[in-house]
Amino acid sequence: MLEARVKQAAVLKKLLDAIKELVTDGNLDCTDEGIALQAMDNSHVALVSLKLVAEQFESYRCDRNMPLGVNLTSLTKILKCAKDQDVVTLKAPDDADSLGLVFESPKEDRVGEYEMKLMDIDQEHLGIPDTQYDATITMSSSEFQRICRDLAALGESVKIEASKEGVRFSSEGEVGNGSVLLKQSAGTDRGASSSKKASVKRDPDQEDDEEEEDEKPEIDDEEGEDEVDDEDRSKKRKSNGKPKTAKKAKNTDSSSDEVGVSIILEKQVSLTFSLKYLTNFAKSAPLAREVSLHMSNDVPLLVQFDFEQGTLQFFLAPKVSS
Amino acid sequence: MLEARVKQAAVLKKLLDAIKELVTDGNLDCTDEGIALQAMDNSHVALVSLKLVAEQFESYRCDRNMPLGVNLTSLTKILKCAKDQDVVTLKAPDDADSLGLVFESPKEDRVGEYEMKLMDIDQEHLGIPDTQYDATITMSSSEFQRICRDLAALGESVKIEASKEGVRFSSEGEVGNGSVLLKQSAGTDRGASSSKKASVKRDPDQEDDEEEEDEKPEIDDEEGEDEVDDEDRSKKRKSNGKPKTAKKAKNTDSSSDEVGVSIILEKQVSLTFSLKYLTNFAKSAPLAREVSLHMSNDVPLLVQFDFEQGTLQFFLAPKVSS
Amino acid sequence: MLEARVKQAAVLKKLLDAIKELVTDGNLDCTDEGIALQAMDNSHVALVSLKLVAEQFESYRCDRNMPLGVNLTSLTKILKCAKDQDVVTLKAPDDADSLGLVFESPKEDRVGEYEMKLMDIDQEHLGIPDTQYDATITMSSSEFQRICRDLAALGESVKIEASKEGVRFSSEGEVGNGSVLLKQSAGTDRGASSSKKASVKRDPDQEDDEEEEDEKPEIDDEEGEDEVDDEDRSKKRKSNGKPKTAKKAKNTDSSSDEVGVSIILEKQVSLTFSLKYLTNFAKSAPLAREVSLHMSNDVPLLVQFDFEQGTLQFFLAPKVSS
Repeated sequence: MLEARVKQAAVLKKLLDAIKELVTDGNLDCTDEGIALQAMDNSHVALVSLKLVAEQFESYRCDRNMPLGVNLTSLTKILKCAKDQDVVTLKAPDDADSLGLVFESPKEDRVGEYEMKLMDIDQEHLGIPDTQYDATITMSSSEFQRICRDLAALGESVKIEASKEGVRFSSEGEVGNGSVLLKQSAGTDRGASSSKKASVKRDPDQEDDEEEEDEKPEIDDEEGEDEVDDEDRSKKRKSNGKPKTAKKAKNTDSSSDEVGVSIILEKQVSLTFSLKYLTNFAKSAPLAREVSLHMSNDVPLLVQFDFEQGTLQFFLAPKVSS
Repeated sequence: MLEARVKQAAVLKKLLDAIKELVTDGNLDCTDEGIALQAMDNSHVALVSLKLVAEQFESYRCDRNMPLGVNLTSLTKILKCAKDQDVVTLKAPDDADSLGLVFESPKEDRVGEYEMKLMDIDQEHLGIPDTQYDATITMSSSEFQRICRDLAALGESVKIEASKEGVRFSSEGEVGNGSVLLKQSAGTDRGASSSKKASVKRDPDQEDDEEEEDEKPEIDDEEGEDEVDDEDRSKKRKSNGKPKTAKKAKNTDSSSDEVGVSIILEKQVSLTFSLKYLTNFAKSAPLAREVSLHMSNDVPLLVQFDFEQGTLQFFLAPKVSS
Repeated sequence: MLEARVKQAAVLKKLLDAIKELVTDGNLDCTDEGIALQAMDNSHVALVSLKLVAEQFESYRCDRNMPLGVNLTSLTKILKCAKDQDVVTLKAPDDADSLGLVFESPKEDRVGEYEMKLMDIDQEHLGIPDTQYDATITMSSSEFQRICRDLAALGESVKIEASKEGVRFSSEGEVGNGSVLLKQSAGTDRGASSSKKASVKRDPDQEDDEEEEDEKPEIDDEEGEDEVDDEDRSKKRKSNGKPKTAKKAKNTDSSSDEVGVSIILEKQVSLTFSLKYLTNFAKSAPLAREVSLHMSNDVPLLVQFDFEQGTLQFFLAPKVSS
């Protein structure tokens, strides 16, 4: 049986909002490690991979591996019945034909009990090869969402170019063409081959207190191990040998503008993607302040959102330039 | 002639928003006691009964009983021309063929004068029998609205069950089924036959200050007569022998979460209603923080909103269970 | 070549929002005096005239007069890609076939570069005769917008009557009829022929501090020349001999309710206009707190918004009363 308790319904609602337009049906693969969902999007172009880590649930118990075939539209409907602050418990006996959801208000004066019918979904589990990416861009997720939306008004695809200077998104269409350059934040240029401080020119008018925040994390990352919070732990777990994501923005407040841009670069990359899909991926922005884009030539782009309970990944093959 | 002055346009706007989708045309029955409107909904299933009490107007004068036949869609349009804070004066001479509305800004620098054509409506006035209900549930009106909306996503009808434990709303449909249980708030279990304090289990983590508020009103209700505010007075007027509604939430702030649930129970009741109508009734939530549901087996449900200027009642027959 | 720098994208966005529904294509006439756009609305009934004054740009350079033929729908799309706080630079070489737009974030960490295709627009420039208006009404732009919207729910046209008492907007239709009277604010009745203080009756309940603000500007306007802010300067520039607009609301905060009504009256005016157009003009309300309506019998109404960067004017012929 499965019994998994999530502290706040809000995170599940945001997750469903993030993927429900890409994926209609999918198996929630429940194991003692957590709950995973992997599915091609409805047009079989993009791959969605969600992992909710057992340790990040309020409580988690799964005696036996089981796939729960879920219609995401239905699940969304039922999750709408939970208030954001409600504690959610997912329940399924072995060989369940329905998933139980219990929503409890923080004051425990209100209990919603729902049962959702499950379905049999025949799904191949795709192995995702562990890839060393040439470029990893970490940036504000809301900035990413904004850029995708803006450029989608101009054209159908976006070229993403990562260089030491920063990352440039560009698009063209009938109205004209446009590009957005995000400059790498000072103190975050840590190419895999050279970890020296970047000498990016800074406007002296910029606030100094911001600069201080930029310089500290380098040390914290190495030595402050015992102070790490939940978010750090979940990030550390998954960093299996891949170049570590810079954490420039960690201590800043929740304003998205404060999340800087960091670029880890093995070599320059320039790839073109369908804006339709990126715009859909970007809908996950409410899940996490940061998004990371992992790119190599001729390899699918990985767009990754790390949030407290786990990780949401989207894979999308680049367009072949003509 | 009629001349009735309402302190704030907002209340009239909310009233119209509450009933305009149920009722298209109706007579405003003006007497020296106030203004009343009674009408079957457009599908002749539900009954709407509105009473605005003369004493609760800023000033009120009605020399002669007169029915003013009003198209509620038109009245809504005209009321939209008033700002929420405007003072509204309704004016009609005897044998009027139009209703005058004057909207004055609080600073008196802006005066809107409108005239709306009246119509002849042939309307039988239904006598509503004074009913002793087996169960009266008082709860947050916004919680009621939320539950109706949530369950309407699942099914077409809702079963409402009142017991000592609390009130349960449940629904089922293709996606699955669900129920919401609202537990009775501590200190408000005052069954008509037993007025002893409830021994509902409470989570010790809950805030203590809330508990204090729960205990005081019992005394205030009996002795604090000279301190009652306008809202209290309008409520007292209508409590003609019916079991008094608990006022648990009286002193709490306007956050709807603070309105507790109280249940007065002669005997257990379980009735099923169309969610389509309840959802419409629930649109009156902006009028009043609390709503009361009055139920007896085989008798129409009464959904009642008490607000400063009067009372809005909806009656709906239960579905016959098969 | 043209290179014009605007401090905040917001003002351009508001401008485009204000006119894009009236005008589809137009020439931005760039000269060393600034950028102007003049166009008949799509139904050839109203005239729109926009002037952005060279001095009010962050920096401005235009070596040679040139008309830039712009599709306003496309320009709106591209401006949506700017954030409100971005610095915008408009760039066009001589004989340009596209307009360059650069959006820089205040922190300079984000640069958007866009190019919009230009078009050849054959446009007659209409000379607008300098008119002495019989009545000039200055009022809150949001109040103007509100009144147009309200009355448009009743009828198709509005009669505007200016008198010493105030300005009355009235409309009638099937539902009924209505009018809104805005009383002239105390201390602002300065008819062109008599500049004496008005003896408008005031409600003694009104706040006194407001009255104090009313009395000061009369002196400031004459002597406080060195203290004037940018907004004042741009207003002064255009007051070429015309009766000066009263500035009653200058020192009050941004709440639109604080903007009083002032009327400069040569003689009483009563004219009727299509609400469809006025409602469209009123969409410029976000540009400026005040709007001025200039009216003479048998002459097009001038609706004017003065904002920091310039002036937006709309002209509309009155309806012939039958």
